[in-house]
Amino acid sequence: MATGYLYHELYEWHDTGTHASLLPADSRRGLQPFRHFENADPKRRAHALVVTSGLINRLTRLTPRRATDEEILLVHTAHHLQRLTKANDTGGDAGDGGTPFGRGSFDIARLALGGLIDSVKAVADRYVDNAYALFRPPGHHAVPDSGMGFCMLANIAVAVRAVRRSHDVRRVAVVDIDVHHGNGTQTVFWEDPDVLTLSLHQDQAFPKNSGFLTERGGGAGFGHNLNLPLPPGTGNGGYSEAMRRVVLPALRRFRPELIMVAAGFDASALDPLGRMMLTATGFRQIATMLVDAADELSDGRIVCAHEGGYAEAYVPFCTHAVIETLARVERPFEDPFRFDTLGQQELQPHQKAAIKAAEKLVKDVQHP
Amino acid sequence: MATGYLYHELYEWHDTGTHASLLPADSRRGLQPFRHFENADPKRRAHALVVTSGLINRLTRLTPRRATDEEILLVHTAHHLQRLTKANDTGGDAGDGGTPFGRGSFDIARLALGGLIDSVKAVADRYVDNAYALFRPPGHHAVPDSGMGFCMLANIAVAVRAVRRSHDVRRVAVVDIDVHHGNGTQTVFWEDPDVLTLSLHQDQAFPKNSGFLTERGGGAGFGHNLNLPLPPGTGNGGYSEAMRRVVLPALRRFRPELIMVAAGFDASALDPLGRMMLTATGFRQIATMLVDAADELSDGRIVCAHEGGYAEAYVPFCTHAVIETLARVERPFEDPFRFDTLGQQELQPHQKAAIKAAEKLVKDVQHP
Amino acid sequence: MATGYLYHELYEWHDTGTHASLLPADSRRGLQPFRHFENADPKRRAHALVVTSGLINRLTRLTPRRATDEEILLVHTAHHLQRLTKANDTGGDAGDGGTPFGRGSFDIARLALGGLIDSVKAVADRYVDNAYALFRPPGHHAVPDSGMGFCMLANIAVAVRAVRRSHDVRRVAVVDIDVHHGNGTQTVFWEDPDVLTLSLHQDQAFPKNSGFLTERGGGAGFGHNLNLPLPPGTGNGGYSEAMRRVVLPALRRFRPELIMVAAGFDASALDPLGRMMLTATGFRQIATMLVDAADELSDGRIVCAHEGGYAEAYVPFCTHAVIETLARVERPFEDPFRFDTLGQQELQPHQKAAIKAAEKLVKDVQHP
Amino acid sequence: MATGYLYHELYEWHDTGTHASLLPADSRRGLQPFRHFENADPKRRAHALVVTSGLINRLTRLTPRRATDEEILLVHTAHHLQRLTKANDTGGDAGDGGTPFGRGSFDIARLALGGLIDSVKAVADRYVDNAYALFRPPGHHAVPDSGMGFCMLANIAVAVRAVRRSHDVRRVAVVDIDVHHGNGTQTVFWEDPDVLTLSLHQDQAFPKNSGFLTERGGGAGFGHNLNLPLPPGTGNGGYSEAMRRVVLPALRRFRPELIMVAAGFDASALDPLGRMMLTATGFRQIATMLVDAADELSDGRIVCAHEGGYAEAYVPFCTHAVIETLARVERPFEDPFRFDTLGQQELQPHQKAAIKAAEKLVKDVQHP
Ligand SMILES: [Zn+2]
Ligand SMILES: [Zn+2]
Ligand SMILES: [Zn+2]
Ligand SMILES: [Zn+2]
Repeated sequence: MATGYLYHELYEWHDTGTHASLLPADSRRGLQPFRHFENADPKRRAHALVVTSGLINRLTRLTPRRATDEEILLVHTAHHLQRLTKANDTGGDAGDGGTPFGRGSFDIARLALGGLIDSVKAVADRYVDNAYALFRPPGHHAVPDSGMGFCMLANIAVAVRAVRRSHDVRRVAVVDIDVHHGNGTQTVFWEDPDVLTLSLHQDQAFPKNSGFLTERGGGAGFGHNLNLPLPPGTGNGGYSEAMRRVVLPALRRFRPELIMVAAGFDASALDPLGRMMLTATGFRQIATMLVDAADELSDGRIVCAHEGGYAEAYVPFCTHAVIETLARVERPFEDPFRFDTLGQQELQPHQKAAIKAAEKLVKDVQHP
Repeated sequence: MATGYLYHELYEWHDTGTHASLLPADSRRGLQPFRHFENADPKRRAHALVVTSGLINRLTRLTPRRATDEEILLVHTAHHLQRLTKANDTGGDAGDGGTPFGRGSFDIARLALGGLIDSVKAVADRYVDNAYALFRPPGHHAVPDSGMGFCMLANIAVAVRAVRRSHDVRRVAVVDIDVHHGNGTQTVFWEDPDVLTLSLHQDQAFPKNSGFLTERGGGAGFGHNLNLPLPPGTGNGGYSEAMRRVVLPALRRFRPELIMVAAGFDASALDPLGRMMLTATGFRQIATMLVDAADELSDGRIVCAHEGGYAEAYVPFCTHAVIETLARVERPFEDPFRFDTLGQQELQPHQKAAIKAAEKLVKDVQHP
Repeated sequence: MATGYLYHELYEWHDTGTHASLLPADSRRGLQPFRHFENADPKRRAHALVVTSGLINRLTRLTPRRATDEEILLVHTAHHLQRLTKANDTGGDAGDGGTPFGRGSFDIARLALGGLIDSVKAVADRYVDNAYALFRPPGHHAVPDSGMGFCMLANIAVAVRAVRRSHDVRRVAVVDIDVHHGNGTQTVFWEDPDVLTLSLHQDQAFPKNSGFLTERGGGAGFGHNLNLPLPPGTGNGGYSEAMRRVVLPALRRFRPELIMVAAGFDASALDPLGRMMLTATGFRQIATMLVDAADELSDGRIVCAHEGGYAEAYVPFCTHAVIETLARVERPFEDPFRFDTLGQQELQPHQKAAIKAAEKLVKDVQHP
Repeated sequence: MATGYLYHELYEWHDTGTHASLLPADSRRGLQPFRHFENADPKRRAHALVVTSGLINRLTRLTPRRATDEEILLVHTAHHLQRLTKANDTGGDAGDGGTPFGRGSFDIARLALGGLIDSVKAVADRYVDNAYALFRPPGHHAVPDSGMGFCMLANIAVAVRAVRRSHDVRRVAVVDIDVHHGNGTQTVFWEDPDVLTLSLHQDQAFPKNSGFLTERGGGAGFGHNLNLPLPPGTGNGGYSEAMRRVVLPALRRFRPELIMVAAGFDASALDPLGRMMLTATGFRQIATMLVDAADELSDGRIVCAHEGGYAEAYVPFCTHAVIETLARVERPFEDPFRFDTLGQQELQPHQKAAIKAAEKLVKDVQHP
């Protein structure tokens, strides 16, 4: 049983500048210089915990290389590739005005994507049984012609297309637990019946007007995009129920050969951008269900790609819990933050209602 | 029409150390050194915005002095006073193991409290019509014998007792909008019919097992403590409803001579500790209702004391909106963060139910 | 006896981005994102000390306004003005590739310069006796057609021209104690016999090939530019000697009506960019000599404009010592850093030699 | 040819608290909370450069373990061991009031020391040819009964004693290039003729009254402690001369079986604590001379232990140059900071005089 683990120090070097958390510093708008939410700390500290807890000794280190133009063009337009290539020397924005990056950041984005592609292939090849890719920048908001929401490249979408091209893998399920809607992945695979895209997210958080239950895929892909917008304030109980009622049944119907997880941690109870209440316990429960599903359905093949998550001190513990689950660690490292007892961690009726609405759509998921 | 404004640079110097956001850094527990949530930045930046926006020119600056032992003993025990006095030279913890402070921090806590006392007296004296006290450390969790939850001294409680002693003020209402339960204030005035303590907070967030609807005051004070635990995820709509259905009716029945506001901003949509969704718009609405209530009931006398709030980039805009409201600024400064359109900002049925439960208790509020 | 004091919170908002101290972050060159040496902290903390020590109560606060185009054009070219004006909306570089700035930074640069102009005029008008202007960005490297070395505008040069235009002031001496050569001021007044520019600096530190003894002014201005390059490692003793042997005699010969001081603190013993050893004691000695010279020569008229200085924890104490001297505070605040006893703080023979070489040039300073 | 490289993520977790660079934050002394000079960044960033430049691929990673009590007692007193053991749960100070540490920091200090001991043994065993140990906390100021100057344990001294006990190594030379005097190592080996301790440092910087030429060792050790205090402002030229005139001749006379280097980088041109001007070029020159000396004298056996160095952006390049030298990298990574051309980088006469004074003492170094 081997779990691949991807990390590279250069992921810490992606530069998002002196923002006021989200917005460019601007004295005229009252925005004093500070740091960007999407800075290196949450992921740097997550990696540090993986090392210092000793978990690293249970993992197989994977070494990244830069994704090629050809790989990027599997999903992205030449226009977007050109934009990033040109701005790599000066820094710039990836397209939506909210995705700043610095000198050399596109090299780093390539190193993240290339690392993910190879992680997926390592699982497809059975070099490792499953894998966790811890990197920056994230990917699930990027669309073919533009970066978006801190994402420069559509990491998971490209990796899925790449592995389907190189390996005998057809049916892929992408489970997105980032607190924001996985709009980029949805867009790329909108008409593709062979990729089931599932997104659990906070109702209408980001992007605007995106992530509704009614977005179900188009053409041959109808039914194979499934959004489950959850009410703000949803905790471990609500997420577990959503997994049990919607995600797992959908996966069982679809029978993927590979499960990809958009592993955002901005649904944690300490995240400044999300309003959810997941704890390390909740993330562990979700991961356990997904690993079990992979055992049952995809011969254990599951790859997690790190997405958002901005709680510098807490992302490490949540990430650690997921990686421990992949690696089937028996005695997990203790989460010193005690947020399991927050009020309303258990499933609430209004959350149940939202989940039930999505549950009805599961029947349209087919084994393609 | 004059609004008093209290701030002092020393409030930025209160030292909470290299915590992992909430917990003491400890390599053995996986807690890499970082910063404490309750560091100077949110309030420092709030003051900076008040200055740079020009709002400062509409305000009357109030100058703090240190609270005396005698004032502190109006609420606190000699034991607690002694603990803080002794640890002022070395730094220490204010009593609950979660309220770290540095060398000289007790001097700063005195400067905050002294400033608040004088702000309240300035309003009682009609030197200013109302006032905003922007300081650290916060106060609403501190109990007579101990600090708690980042609070060293029970700022509002002491100020209320002080002004009642020095001025012809008897009936005081304390409205606590910090995302956490105002347990300290509740404790101090538990049996006091002349102080109406109202706390709107996230259900069972902090402290543990505190802030329930069923905590209503004791003895002669029964009915004059009113907790309104709101579900995590409550936004501008839910808070407005809670104000209209519970807080304002209770204030009207009680007819305070002075309204104190425990102005925490950790119910903001970007707070890492709270799970609520208030925006500057929502805080402005709350403040407007409270200012109107003061006009109607307490001859305009209202004093806001800053409590929690940990979103470094967003606390400034929320604070600014409240101060603008006190100062009756016609053309408010624009909030560049656009979180008013987050999903479920409007009142939700389950929030309405929680509010209705509290509404039933309003009838027991009396004009004392 | 009144000392004017200029500061504005917006000076903290000038944004120099995520540099690796000096160089733009760039993963390909090994430059991990960090902060720029010229960030807000040294000056923000200096102001904080002025407030918290109580020194502020001895000072007359001056309020800045933005310098006008017309004022800027007293020194700068239309080309440079246009460059800054255009880049104010986006951020950019002030011309040398090493002077980054952010959105709205040019507004702040105007607010610094406008504040300095008015500070100088306040002294010329005898509204205050002398003044200290604590601001960012600095100015002494900027040349007419370009910013340079973190300086966007030639603050002192513009202020000197402005006051000479508006007031009955002709002879101005500029004493530059920043660790780097005051090349901008030198350039502006190169041929002007009425402005004596004196720069004490670390030999060949910045800019390259600048600041030599042999640069003496041109045309009618010959002899009225005096550079004193000091060996790296010079401390309180060497600086005192330089003041006594060169600066004071030159001032006495010149008989200025106004003394301007380019008050950089990067010659401090803890500065990361300079290699000198001045302590608060040394800065106090220099300031005392200059204040005495002003008393003797310019009817007490002396204005200090803050330039460089990058030791976040020590700049406050050095700045404080200079302001105390202007305000003739009898009992100075104690410097808790004990660097007066560093080895070789006293005058060294090789420093003496360098000073003597400059001393010979003093004879060419004339009363114009 | 193999170069061992020791690093562990836990070295970043040693917690030195919210100091004002050097001194404990204290509002009453004007010391606003900030960070300690000896924080994780300089070394964390040095390691990051080693990884991202690809140098890591030329190195043999060494894995640390914690030093045992028995090893610590090779140099330290039971009293000091007990002090650190007791304070490991709470944090404290290592004995001089200027060496703060946090919870679990003693575990990290053990991990540094244990790693160094094993690095030295790996070289003695010829598992690797030479080694670089990059860790925190530093060690060269610690004396047997106390920590001092940010140093908790006398790392090099313990490692020397340990390897002499376990291996057939008798004569060890310790060359200390940290900008401060290596007083701890001097103290431990004061009377030991078999350990030649050489310290190049800034004259009388730290500790006070320490590091004089006249401190030459006692008893049988006389002549085998050699201090070379250099004038502040010394650059690449002065250091090279000192190496050529004093260090190399002394090494040749002594004929060590092992060379230890106390590799501090606070003599760099950007260091806030030191006043020297070494650049990556200068450090490379020093390292080259030492590596050549090791080739000539000690069969190539040389181990560098990282000591001080506080320039977050520049320490990485200096460290990198030294490690490249150990690993005999032909095409070094470019230093983007251009400080080789600072004025007076070349040897100055007054530096030459200081070096000559030390040169006279070399004759008393004997092959023991
Ligand atoms: Zn997200
Ligand atoms: Zn709170
Ligand atoms: Zn300078
Ligand atoms: Zn040192």
